[in-house]
Amino acid sequence: MKFKHLKYLCLPLVMLLSQLANAETLEFEMTIDEMTVDVAPGFKNKVWAFNGQVPGPLIRAKEGDRLKVKVINNSTLAHTVHWHGTLQTNSWKMDGVPNVTQKAIEPGESFVYDFVVDRPGSLWYHCHVNVPEHVGLRGMWGPMIIDPKEPEEIEKEVTKEAIMMFSGWNSEVAMEYGKGGHPAEKSDYFSINGKSFPITQPLRVKEGDVVRIRLYAASSEVAYHLHGHDVLVTHKDGLPLESPYWSDVVHVPMGGRIDIIARMDNPGIWINHDHIEHHTSNAGKMPGGAVTIIEYEGVETEDWYSWKDKEYQPDFYMSETMKKGSGLHNIDLFKGKAPESDRSARKKKRKKKSKAH
Amino acid sequence: MKFKHLKYLCLPLVMLLSQLANAETLEFEMTIDEMTVDVAPGFKNKVWAFNGQVPGPLIRAKEGDRLKVKVINNSTLAHTVHWHGTLQTNSWKMDGVPNVTQKAIEPGESFVYDFVVDRPGSLWYHCHVNVPEHVGLRGMWGPMIIDPKEPEEIEKEVTKEAIMMFSGWNSEVAMEYGKGGHPAEKSDYFSINGKSFPITQPLRVKEGDVVRIRLYAASSEVAYHLHGHDVLVTHKDGLPLESPYWSDVVHVPMGGRIDIIARMDNPGIWINHDHIEHHTSNAGKMPGGAVTIIEYEGVETEDWYSWKDKEYQPDFYMSETMKKGSGLHNIDLFKGKAPESDRSARKKKRKKKSKAH
Amino acid sequence: MKFKHLKYLCLPLVMLLSQLANAETLEFEMTIDEMTVDVAPGFKNKVWAFNGQVPGPLIRAKEGDRLKVKVINNSTLAHTVHWHGTLQTNSWKMDGVPNVTQKAIEPGESFVYDFVVDRPGSLWYHCHVNVPEHVGLRGMWGPMIIDPKEPEEIEKEVTKEAIMMFSGWNSEVAMEYGKGGHPAEKSDYFSINGKSFPITQPLRVKEGDVVRIRLYAASSEVAYHLHGHDVLVTHKDGLPLESPYWSDVVHVPMGGRIDIIARMDNPGIWINHDHIEHHTSNAGKMPGGAVTIIEYEGVETEDWYSWKDKEYQPDFYMSETMKKGSGLHNIDLFKGKAPESDRSARKKKRKKKSKAH
Repeated sequence: MKFKHLKYLCLPLVMLLSQLANAETLEFEMTIDEMTVDVAPGFKNKVWAFNGQVPGPLIRAKEGDRLKVKVINNSTLAHTVHWHGTLQTNSWKMDGVPNVTQKAIEPGESFVYDFVVDRPGSLWYHCHVNVPEHVGLRGMWGPMIIDPKEPEEIEKEVTKEAIMMFSGWNSEVAMEYGKGGHPAEKSDYFSINGKSFPITQPLRVKEGDVVRIRLYAASSEVAYHLHGHDVLVTHKDGLPLESPYWSDVVHVPMGGRIDIIARMDNPGIWINHDHIEHHTSNAGKMPGGAVTIIEYEGVETEDWYSWKDKEYQPDFYMSETMKKGSGLHNIDLFKGKAPESDRSARKKKRKKKSKAH
Repeated sequence: MKFKHLKYLCLPLVMLLSQLANAETLEFEMTIDEMTVDVAPGFKNKVWAFNGQVPGPLIRAKEGDRLKVKVINNSTLAHTVHWHGTLQTNSWKMDGVPNVTQKAIEPGESFVYDFVVDRPGSLWYHCHVNVPEHVGLRGMWGPMIIDPKEPEEIEKEVTKEAIMMFSGWNSEVAMEYGKGGHPAEKSDYFSINGKSFPITQPLRVKEGDVVRIRLYAASSEVAYHLHGHDVLVTHKDGLPLESPYWSDVVHVPMGGRIDIIARMDNPGIWINHDHIEHHTSNAGKMPGGAVTIIEYEGVETEDWYSWKDKEYQPDFYMSETMKKGSGLHNIDLFKGKAPESDRSARKKKRKKKSKAH
Repeated sequence: MKFKHLKYLCLPLVMLLSQLANAETLEFEMTIDEMTVDVAPGFKNKVWAFNGQVPGPLIRAKEGDRLKVKVINNSTLAHTVHWHGTLQTNSWKMDGVPNVTQKAIEPGESFVYDFVVDRPGSLWYHCHVNVPEHVGLRGMWGPMIIDPKEPEEIEKEVTKEAIMMFSGWNSEVAMEYGKGGHPAEKSDYFSINGKSFPITQPLRVKEGDVVRIRLYAASSEVAYHLHGHDVLVTHKDGLPLESPYWSDVVHVPMGGRIDIIARMDNPGIWINHDHIEHHTSNAGKMPGGAVTIIEYEGVETEDWYSWKDKEYQPDFYMSETMKKGSGLHNIDLFKGKAPESDRSARKKKRKKKSKAH
C-alpha cells in the first residue's frame, strides 16, 4: 500500500505552510430567508434559502484563506451552518452542529462563522438542524469551492466548470414548514441546482472544451450518466484520487461529491441525467427530474427538439460565476419569491375574484 | 495523478485507427413485441420485449465495428433504443433519446440505428422513452458486449463468461401497460436475467476455471455477493480500472456495469446474490429474488439441496452464447409468451368453463 | 493493469503456508436467544441474539486459525450462521446457507461450524435464513476480525480501533417475531452497534491517536461522514486497497465493510453519522439515528452540550475488547433482556395495577 497522498495525514503542517503564503481574509454576510421556489412546472416548494437562493450563493476561496461569514436568521425556526469538507482545524466550535459545537441560531439572531479553509476541493455548506427536513426538503445547501495550492495537471487543462447539485423534493409537504423528512416518505421530484427538467438549462460547450463537472448529492443519491462521453472520475469529496478511473455511470452517495472531467470531443446534443429511473420524472411523469442536456456550439437541431426555443440562462451551472474568482457570489437565477409577494399576489387574486362576483 | 488510460481522452484517434483495421459491418433486425414473461413462480409481468426476449438478445461485436440495427416497433406505444456505453462519435443522432436525438419510433414504424461501436466493454441497450416504466418495469434492456482491440492480461485468462442483468418488478402494475414507475412505488420482485430464485439457473463451473461475470444494474441497484470466493473488480462500466480491487460485496449503481473476475479454486456449492436484503425475496417471501448458485462439477449434493432435481438450462448466463463470437444472438430461454397465446389460452378456458355449465 | 494483490488469486497456497505456521484452533459455543433490546429511547425490538447480544459477540482470530463454533438454537425458529468474508476453502458445507450447504438448525438443536479462517480483515457473521427479517430486523449479526499474517504499514500505525455496525429497524413489526422484511416496508429507526442517538456512546480519543474504524453495513446502507477529519479508505470488505483514497462521505453497500483510518490531529467534539438524511432521525424526529460523537480528551464542553452528563460506557465501539486478542468476546453492553424478565416485569406491573384498584 502506497501513500502518495500521505500529506493529508499531516494536514496541520500543510495548513501552516499555506498560511504563511498569501492567504486572504474574506468577510461575508449571508441571510436565511423564507422563500418559495419553482422546482418544476406546476410545482412550488417552501424553502429556507441562503440569501434567498437555492442553491445558496457560490462561495469561492483559496486553500488557506480565512472566511468570516455572518449568518443572519430571518426565518421562523432555528438553524446552523455546517461547512462540509472544511476540517475546522483548531476551530471546532465553527463546525455548525447544534448542541455539539454551538447553540442553534434562533430566529432573528445571527452567528459569525470564522475559520480557515484548510483543505481544497468541492465543498458545500448546509444547515445541520433537523437535516431530513431542512437539507432534505427545504433547500438549505450551497456550493463552496476551495482552490488548491497545487492543482493536479488534469485540473489545469479544464476550460469550463460546471456545478450540479442534486436534490429530492416531496410535494405532499412542500408548502408546509415543519413537515416532512420521515423515513417512510418518498421524494417525488428530483432536480439539478433546484430545478427539474424541462426547467433546467442546457450546458453549452464548444468542441475542444475540457469540462469539469462537480457532482453534489445534496439531498438525493445520484447515479450520473453523461451520453456521448466517458468521464474521468478525478476527485472524491474534493480530494484528488491517486488512481482516477473512467466511468459512464457515476455514483454519488448522499452528502458526497464527485468531480469528473470530460473532453468535449464529440459534437452533438447529449442528454445527461441521474440514471436512477424514477429520478427522471416529475411526480412519476417523464420527461422530468434530474435531467439536463449538453449542447455543442454550432450543432443544428430539428424542430421537434425539446429545447428548440429554450430561453437560455447562461449561468445555471455557475460556469460564469466560476470565472469570477474568490468571493461570495449571489446568483439571481436561483432566487425564490418571498412569501410576502406570494401573499400580496393571493390578495390581488382574491380582489379580482370578489370584483368578478 | 497519473493518466495511464489517457487514451480515452483521445478516443476519436483510437477510433480512426481501429477503423483502418479489420472492422466489420454487422446488420441486424430487432423487433419490439408485447409479451408476458414468467418472473417468479406464480408471478407474470407484461413486457415490451426486444425480439420477444427479456433480457433482449445478446449483441456482440468488436471495437471499431459498424452496427446497423433496424428496430421494428410491433407494440402499441412509442419507443427508442439508447446504446448505453457507445459514445456515438460523429453519430449523435443515433443516441436514441426521444425529442433530443430523434423522434420516438411510433407503433408499426421502424428506425435504423447506424453507428460505430467506438469503445469496448460491457455495454447494454435500453429504451429511452418513459424509462421508469419501460426500463424499470417492462424489461426493455439487453446486453451488448464489445470486444477490445487490446484486452488486458487478466481478460485473456478467462475461461468462462457470465452475464447477470439485475432488475426489479412491481406486481401491482405488472399486467397493465402504461402503469407504474412513480417514485413512491416499491418493487417487490427482483431478478437476474429476468428470473427470480428458484427459477434462476445454476452457473456450472469446473475447478480451474477463471470466471468473468459482467454485473448489470439494469433496473435495480445491486450489492452482489459471491460466497466462497473473493472477486477482483476489473472493469467499471466496461472500461478497465487502472487499480483493480478485491471485494466480496460489489455495488453497482443503477445503470452501471461492473466486471468481476474470480478464480474457481474452491470446489463446492456457492450461493451468490444481491445482498440488499429484500432483494432476496419474492414479494417478501424468502427464498426468492436475485439469487443464484455456482455449482462446481463433481461436487456431491444432499437430498435436501434446493436444486437437487433442477432442470438445467445451460445458457441462462449466456456463457454458451458468448462462445459464438460477433452477431445478434437470440436466446430462446428468455422468450416470453405473446398475448395472443394468452388470449387463446383464456378463450379455451372460457370454453371449458361454459361446457362445464 | 497491475496485479500486485494477485496473491489473492492463489489463496489455497497462501492458506497452506499459513497453516504451516503457528495456527491455533479456537473452540467456542454460541447460543441464539430470544431477547428484547432497547434501540432508541422508547423503542424496543425483539431480536434473535447471538449470546443474547446485538451486535453478537466479537470473534477475533489470526489468519490461518481454525475455528470450531457450536451454535445452539434456543429460539423458536430455524437459523444458520454464514461467516461472511471467510472463503471456506475446502469446507463449503460450513458456509451456513440453508438447503444449499446445510439444513437449517431447528429450535433446540445445534450445529458445529468447523473451518479455517482463510483470509484476513473485517469479516462478520449473520444468519442466512429469512434474511430480510432475521438480519434486516432482528439483530442476527456480529463482527469477526481476522488479523492478517502481513499487515500493511498503515495498519501498524493504528493506536485505537473501533467497530461500527449500522442497521435499520422497523417499529411496526418490532415486537412480532415472524413479521417484517417485505420490500415495500421502510425502516424508521437507524443505529450504530444496535443503538440510536442519543443512546449511542462517544468514541473518546486523544490527540495523536491513529483511529481505525471498521464500518459495517449490517442491515442498512451507509454514507458515513466524520466531521473535522478526512479519512483514508484503506480496506474494502476486509482486503487492502492497492490505491487507498481520501474521503469525507464513505459509502458502504448493504453487506459490505469499509475500513477507514484517520489521524486524530484536530482536538474538538466531532459528530459523525450516516449522511443519508432520514438515517439521522428516530421515527422521523431529529436528533436520532446512526449518529455518534468523537470526543477528544481534554476538550472543554459547554453546559448545552447534548452529552454533557453522558454516562460513559467505554467499550461501545469494542475498542477495549479489541485489545484482548484472539477469542470469542461477550460484551455485556450489548446484552438484551430475556422475554421471561419482560414477562415477569409485566406480571409485577399487572399486580401493582390490580392492587391499586
